[in-house]
Amino acid sequence: MEKGKSFLERALELHARFKGKIEVMPKVPILEHKYFAIWYTPGVAEPARVISRGEEKVFDYTSKWNSVAVISDGSRVLGLGDVGPSAALPVMEGKALLFKVLGGVDAFPIVLNTKDPDEIVNVVKAISPTFGGINLEDISTPKCYYVYEQLSKQLTIPVFHDDRFGTAVVVLAGLMNALKIVGKKLSNVRITVVGAGAAGLAVADLLLHAGADPRKMLLVDSKGILYEGREHLDEWKTKYASITNPLKVKGGIAEALKDVDVAIALSRPGPGVITGNMVRSMASDPIVFALANPVPEILPEEAKEAGARIVATGRSDFPNQINNALGFPAIFRGMLDVRARYIDYDMMIAAANEIAKVAEEKGLEEDYIIPRIDEIELYPREAAAVAEAACRSGVARLKVSYSEELEVATSIISRTHKLLKVLSKYLTKMTPESPLF
Amino acid sequence: MEKGKSFLERALELHARFKGKIEVMPKVPILEHKYFAIWYTPGVAEPARVISRGEEKVFDYTSKWNSVAVISDGSRVLGLGDVGPSAALPVMEGKALLFKVLGGVDAFPIVLNTKDPDEIVNVVKAISPTFGGINLEDISTPKCYYVYEQLSKQLTIPVFHDDRFGTAVVVLAGLMNALKIVGKKLSNVRITVVGAGAAGLAVADLLLHAGADPRKMLLVDSKGILYEGREHLDEWKTKYASITNPLKVKGGIAEALKDVDVAIALSRPGPGVITGNMVRSMASDPIVFALANPVPEILPEEAKEAGARIVATGRSDFPNQINNALGFPAIFRGMLDVRARYIDYDMMIAAANEIAKVAEEKGLEEDYIIPRIDEIELYPREAAAVAEAACRSGVARLKVSYSEELEVATSIISRTHKLLKVLSKYLTKMTPESPLF
Repeated sequence: MEKGKSFLERALELHARFKGKIEVMPKVPILEHKYFAIWYTPGVAEPARVISRGEEKVFDYTSKWNSVAVISDGSRVLGLGDVGPSAALPVMEGKALLFKVLGGVDAFPIVLNTKDPDEIVNVVKAISPTFGGINLEDISTPKCYYVYEQLSKQLTIPVFHDDRFGTAVVVLAGLMNALKIVGKKLSNVRITVVGAGAAGLAVADLLLHAGADPRKMLLVDSKGILYEGREHLDEWKTKYASITNPLKVKGGIAEALKDVDVAIALSRPGPGVITGNMVRSMASDPIVFALANPVPEILPEEAKEAGARIVATGRSDFPNQINNALGFPAIFRGMLDVRARYIDYDMMIAAANEIAKVAEEKGLEEDYIIPRIDEIELYPREAAAVAEAACRSGVARLKVSYSEELEVATSIISRTHKLLKVLSKYLTKMTPESPLF
Repeated sequence: MEKGKSFLERALELHARFKGKIEVMPKVPILEHKYFAIWYTPGVAEPARVISRGEEKVFDYTSKWNSVAVISDGSRVLGLGDVGPSAALPVMEGKALLFKVLGGVDAFPIVLNTKDPDEIVNVVKAISPTFGGINLEDISTPKCYYVYEQLSKQLTIPVFHDDRFGTAVVVLAGLMNALKIVGKKLSNVRITVVGAGAAGLAVADLLLHAGADPRKMLLVDSKGILYEGREHLDEWKTKYASITNPLKVKGGIAEALKDVDVAIALSRPGPGVITGNMVRSMASDPIVFALANPVPEILPEEAKEAGARIVATGRSDFPNQINNALGFPAIFRGMLDVRARYIDYDMMIAAANEIAKVAEEKGLEEDYIIPRIDEIELYPREAAAVAEAACRSGVARLKVSYSEELEVATSIISRTHKLLKVLSKYLTKMTPESPLF
């Protein structure tokens, strides 16, 4: 596949040819027009009546049980910044595609022409009866913290901010396996998180909940290492400044990486944000996750040359891709299938554990610490782990076992694949100038 | 098909079996996981970038051009009343089904857990960047007037309230043909509209714009015939009270039907709301549209016995069904294909004309004044008529001719039918206990 300008031009041309990426399809047979008497009036009055008597029944008689809103105000889209809702729409449609193909989830993009946090909260609350879950996406900080907090408090369906929690889950999964390879323990290693934006803080937060030692953790933002009492701390950074870095180590990325076992960078495109010398200053068997897009903080080759034992990036053309798609589709699959009320840390850690296990069972290597996106046995297993954890936590409205959910998720996802196979053939036939690659 | 209780039970059971009626499907080929590089990152950055430079491009690179939000707060659902958003959801999903099957339109139900008119306006405005059109549905009066007015003023995509405008279009179509059969002219006939709710007023309004004479029109509500200065008139009824009924005729339905040519009832379920004696008091060759559901204001048999020349109802089991599905899917098809900014009277009248023509070309009869929903040649033709009218009105962003839009609409709708045929086979295979009927 050719990258660079011509690849992007090809992507643009294909978006124009198909005029968007998703459509709304009936999932019930309509072989003749008289079927509408069942699916619309007069038949539909009966499910409407039953739901009016007991609202929870809406999960049984409508698509709510499997519907997720992908919400963005377009204030922080990919590497593009604050491009607004219309420019965010193709990205959110792409997200909906991943939801369906990997998780069998019906996700619908809703881009908002308001940037006001309270208005975003009100709008999402207002439209929530249609959905079984809410996925926030590409919303700028610090607004995204407030919006998430309010919505997760006020709604009784799970709210997820993939840029934060999804990233954290997949990073944790990769780190678990990387540590197995180097023979170290999460509770013992020194970890530096480079970048204290929404994703960086979420990663730090989940690692701490998974057993990392806050006294062995450093966070670095553009002003340097975080410590209690430092200037330029907002309320979110203040929290982590006060629990990490007990010795109040000061300095920049170089100082922050000295003698640490693990560097997890979610900062700004490289190369050169992290240098070979910084990697050389790390403890033995350095683990380097350089996750900036489109160019990692340090390129894998350079990190390896400087002694990094394991390198992961966000890129599909290098080994060990830390890809959010390994997380959100299956996490929602599991949450939707038990009608979870919200998501908690145990569910996220269960997801990370299961992702790690799938790779481990195939045999870990320095260049294989995490499943690739096409190792599709992952998704039902991850959904099952999330569902099981939700039941343990009391977050689930429906109780299922791991093996029950494994069966349900497998059946839903493979149904989607069968339909997609039929449709893909047909869609490809419609566009004789293909192949796409 | 068995009606009554067991039919409704069957509908309930089928809603539960399929767990809702719509799903979100990819419309692009995804034959391998590497295709995500085009449809999601990094490829999607290019359409996002292009749209950020010129917002109108969102119509080219996303599904917005074909997406309609079906909005309801559940405050007036079918015959069920104010049952709330969750109970409205199966109905709105059914509407989405009709949009797709008849018009090839991707409609997505958004039910709102607010009943406040200003909040509804704000929410719909906020989510509008995703959509090429807005369809309001089952919202109570007088709120629905205000919500429509505000939204149509503030948005640059068409807003349609199907309960009002859709009904009016199909009624006008049927009436045009009924008048041809009896050899009368719209501008000459005496018309009484029984029921002055949202639908009744919309019918009166459209008939007047299509050439009906206000001096020959009466409207009746639960308090009697409307006239200027009557009590119990809200601001909307006041308008029609002042332009109709110049002689200030007073009384109820009986007085209102005496000597009139046409009775159009959109009031409350019968039978007995209109009696045989009332029909007998009408002018020669009476035309009676008794459109209440589930039971018409007068049953066709009784109306015919009393001398009605032509009778139409809202029911599929009688001839001459005035069915909104003949209107909204194709009206939106035409509006979306020219990227209309709003809908005007000319577009609605063009739709009615084309619906009428399709039946007329097949040969009008007293029991055939309007196409049946399965006469699918109607939909592309109606879309073409609407698109053409939108271009004449200057409402359209894209200019097309009737024949150009006929081709576009035919191709979009028949593509949907091909996909549905493939899927329906598959879905039926998934449910061996079928057939549904």
